[in-house]
Amino acid sequence: METATTVLADIFLMFLAAKVAGELFERLRQPAVIGELLAGVILGPYALGWIGVPTAGMIEALHGQEVATEAMHAIFEVLAELGVIVLLFLVGLETRLSDILSVGVRAGLVAIAGVIVPFLLGYAFVALVLGTPTIEAIFIGTAMVATSVGITARVLADLGHIRSDEARIILGAAVIDDILGMIVLAIVSALGQGGTVSLGQIGLIAVQAVAFTAFVALAGRHAARRWSIHLERLRIRNAPFVVGVLVMLGLATIAAEIGLAAIIGAFLAGMVFAELSEQYELEQKALPLYEFLVPLFFVITGSRVDWRLFLDGSLLGIALAITALAIVGKLVGCGAAALGLGWRRVAIIGVGMTPRGEVGLIVANVGASLAVIPNEMYSTVVIMSVLTTLVVPPILTLLYGGQSAEPEAVTDYAVADGRLPDL
Amino acid sequence: METATTVLADIFLMFLAAKVAGELFERLRQPAVIGELLAGVILGPYALGWIGVPTAGMIEALHGQEVATEAMHAIFEVLAELGVIVLLFLVGLETRLSDILSVGVRAGLVAIAGVIVPFLLGYAFVALVLGTPTIEAIFIGTAMVATSVGITARVLADLGHIRSDEARIILGAAVIDDILGMIVLAIVSALGQGGTVSLGQIGLIAVQAVAFTAFVALAGRHAARRWSIHLERLRIRNAPFVVGVLVMLGLATIAAEIGLAAIIGAFLAGMVFAELSEQYELEQKALPLYEFLVPLFFVITGSRVDWRLFLDGSLLGIALAITALAIVGKLVGCGAAALGLGWRRVAIIGVGMTPRGEVGLIVANVGASLAVIPNEMYSTVVIMSVLTTLVVPPILTLLYGGQSAEPEAVTDYAVADGRLPDL
Repeated sequence: METATTVLADIFLMFLAAKVAGELFERLRQPAVIGELLAGVILGPYALGWIGVPTAGMIEALHGQEVATEAMHAIFEVLAELGVIVLLFLVGLETRLSDILSVGVRAGLVAIAGVIVPFLLGYAFVALVLGTPTIEAIFIGTAMVATSVGITARVLADLGHIRSDEARIILGAAVIDDILGMIVLAIVSALGQGGTVSLGQIGLIAVQAVAFTAFVALAGRHAARRWSIHLERLRIRNAPFVVGVLVMLGLATIAAEIGLAAIIGAFLAGMVFAELSEQYELEQKALPLYEFLVPLFFVITGSRVDWRLFLDGSLLGIALAITALAIVGKLVGCGAAALGLGWRRVAIIGVGMTPRGEVGLIVANVGASLAVIPNEMYSTVVIMSVLTTLVVPPILTLLYGGQSAEPEAVTDYAVADGRLPDL
Repeated sequence: METATTVLADIFLMFLAAKVAGELFERLRQPAVIGELLAGVILGPYALGWIGVPTAGMIEALHGQEVATEAMHAIFEVLAELGVIVLLFLVGLETRLSDILSVGVRAGLVAIAGVIVPFLLGYAFVALVLGTPTIEAIFIGTAMVATSVGITARVLADLGHIRSDEARIILGAAVIDDILGMIVLAIVSALGQGGTVSLGQIGLIAVQAVAFTAFVALAGRHAARRWSIHLERLRIRNAPFVVGVLVMLGLATIAAEIGLAAIIGAFLAGMVFAELSEQYELEQKALPLYEFLVPLFFVITGSRVDWRLFLDGSLLGIALAITALAIVGKLVGCGAAALGLGWRRVAIIGVGMTPRGEVGLIVANVGASLAVIPNEMYSTVVIMSVLTTLVVPPILTLLYGGQSAEPEAVTDYAVADGRLPDL
C-alpha cells in the first residue's frame, strides 16, 4: 500500500502542477505543454525532488548516485507511456488515411532526408572533429536520426493546426522515419556487437515494420468501416469507444513488440477509427483520457531533465554543438524535402521534425549497453534529446504568429462537437 | 523500455479479457463485473499466468516462491488503485450530500452494528473454538470489520440501482465503517506492538478522520457551489472536469495519508461535485476514465485470487468457517440495523456490506508484519477476503430479481445524458 499511496500523491502533484502551469501558459498565449514540461523540470528529482526518481541511465552515466527504486521508475515510465499513447491515438483520430496518402510522397521525402542529413552531420562531427572511433560516431549519428513526434503533435493540437497540410506531412514523415530509424538501429546494433550485418535479418525487420504499417492502415480502415455496424450490437457500455481503446492498446503493444515505437501503433489505431470518430463521438470520449494522462507524460518528461548537465563546461560545449547539428540536420534535410510549400511551412516541418525525445535516448542506451558509447557521449545525447525537445514548442508557436489561430475554438472544441478545428 | 512494453501488453490483455468477459456476462444478464473478476482469476499468476505477479504476502505466507519483481507488482497496484478511485468518484458524483444525510442515522447504525457483530463473531471463534492467543483473535476479528464498498457500488451501478435508498445507506455506512475500522486498527496495532493504548493518540486519529470527512462533505460542497463560476473563467480545456479530477486525486491522497482508504477521499470528492455534475457533464466526462481504469481494478483483483488455497483441506475448513461468520456477521449486524425497510432491502444492505476485499487484507498484513498472525491464519483471511468479495455480485443480482430494472437505460446512459438512471 505504501508505494501506491506515494505514487498517488505524486500523480496528484504532477496533475496539479501541470494544470496550474498550463493555465498560466494559456494566459500568456503559449502552448500549455511548455508549462507542463517546465513544471516537470521544477518538481523533478534534479530540482525540488518532489516527484519521481532520476533515470537509471542518467545516474550511472553521470553522478554515481544511489540507483533509485526500480518500482517508482517503472510506474512513471508506464504512466508516461500510456499518456503519449493516448496523445497519438487522438492525433490519429484526427487523421484520415487519405490525408496522409495525399501528402505521401512529400512525407516520404521529408522522412528520408531527415534521416540522412542528421546522421551524416552527427557522424562527421564525432568522427572527424572529435576524432573518436567510427562505431561511436555511427551510434551518435543514429541517435540524431529519430523523431519523437509527440511534442510536435501536442503543440500543433494546442495551437489548433493539427489538421493542416504541414501537420499531415510531419505525421506521415514521423511514421516513415520511425521505420527507417528502426532499420538503422538494427544495422548499427549488429555492427556494435562486432558482428557482420546480415542483410536477411535487416530485411526481415524492415518487411515486418512496413507490412504492419501498411496492413493496419489499409486493412484496419476497411475493417472499421465494414464492422462498424457490429459495434452497435455489443452489450457493453460505450462499445465503439471501448473497442477503439482496445485497438489502441493492441496495436501499440504489437508495434512495441516488433521494435517500432508504441506510439506509432497508437497513431495507426486512431487513423483506423478516424472515419467512425464523428459518428460515435470517439474524440469527445477519448478526450478525458487525454486530459488525465497526457499532462503526466509531459511532466514526467520534464522531470527527467537534469539541468546540472549544463554546468559542465566542456561537456556542454560538445553537447551544444551536437544539438545544433541535430537541429540543423532536420531543418536542412526536412526543410529541403519540403521546398516549394512556402518558407513558413518549410520551417514548421523542419522544426516539427526536430524533437528527438525518448527515441534518441533509446539509441544511446543501446550504445551504452554495448559499451561503444562512453559516459560523456551518453550525456551529450541526453542533452541533445532534451534541448531538441524543449526548443520546439516556443519556436513552433512563434512560427504560427505567437498564438493560436482560433483560441476560442481550440479551448472549447471538446465541449462544442468533439472535433479539433480546421485551420 | 522493456518493463513498459511488458506492462503495455498486460494492460491490453486485461482490458481485452475484461471486455470480452463483460460482454458475455451482460448477455447472460449478469453484472459485467463478475466476468471481469473471473477473467482476472483465469489470466492471473495462479492459473494461466499471462498477467501479473503473485502478491508478495501470498507468496511469503504460503508457497515460498521466488518473490516477484517489485516493479510489476507496484505498477499493478497503482493501476488498480486508480481504477477504484475513479469508480468511487463516479459513485460520489451520483450521491448528493442531502441523500446521505437523509439516511444518516440509519447508515450510522448499519456501520456500527456491522463493526461490532463481525468482530465479536471472529474473536469468539478464533479465541474460543480454535483456542489461539487473544491478540491473534483480536486481529482476525478486526480483519472481519472493514467493508470494501467498491464491488458493491459497481454491482449496484451495473444493475441501475446506485441512487436507491439502500445504496445510499450502504455508501454512507461504508464511509462511517471506514473511520471506525481505522480506529479499531489503530487500537489493535498498539496492542500488537505490546504497547498500551494511549487514548489520546486514538482520539487524535479519530478526530482527524471525522474532521476530514465532515469538513470535506460540508465545506467542500459549499465551496463547489460558490466557486463554480470561477471554473468557467479558467483557460485550460475542460476546466470543470479537470478540477474535479484534481480534487479527486487530492482528497484520495489526503485520505490515504491520514490512514483512511483512498477511495473514501475519492467518494467525498465526487460528492463535492455532485451538484455541479449535470451542469458540466462531469459524469459523462469521467465515464471514459471509468471504462478504461475500472475494469483493470477488477481484473487485477481477480488475478490475486490464489485458487490453490482452496486445495488444503484443514485450512479450507477454518477459512470457510471464518468466511461464513464474516458473512453472517454483516448480514445479522447490518441487517438488524436496517430492520423495518422490508426484507429485500435488509438483505441487500447486509449483503452489500459483506465484501472485505483489500481492506481485510490490510489488517492481516499489519498483523503479519507484527508477527501476531501466523501464516495459516493469514491465508484464512485471504480466503475470507476473496470469498466475501466474489459471492456478492451474484447474490445482489439475485436479490434484484436476476436482472437490471432498466437494462437499456443502464447500458446507454452514458450516451443518453451522462446520468445514471434512477430506480
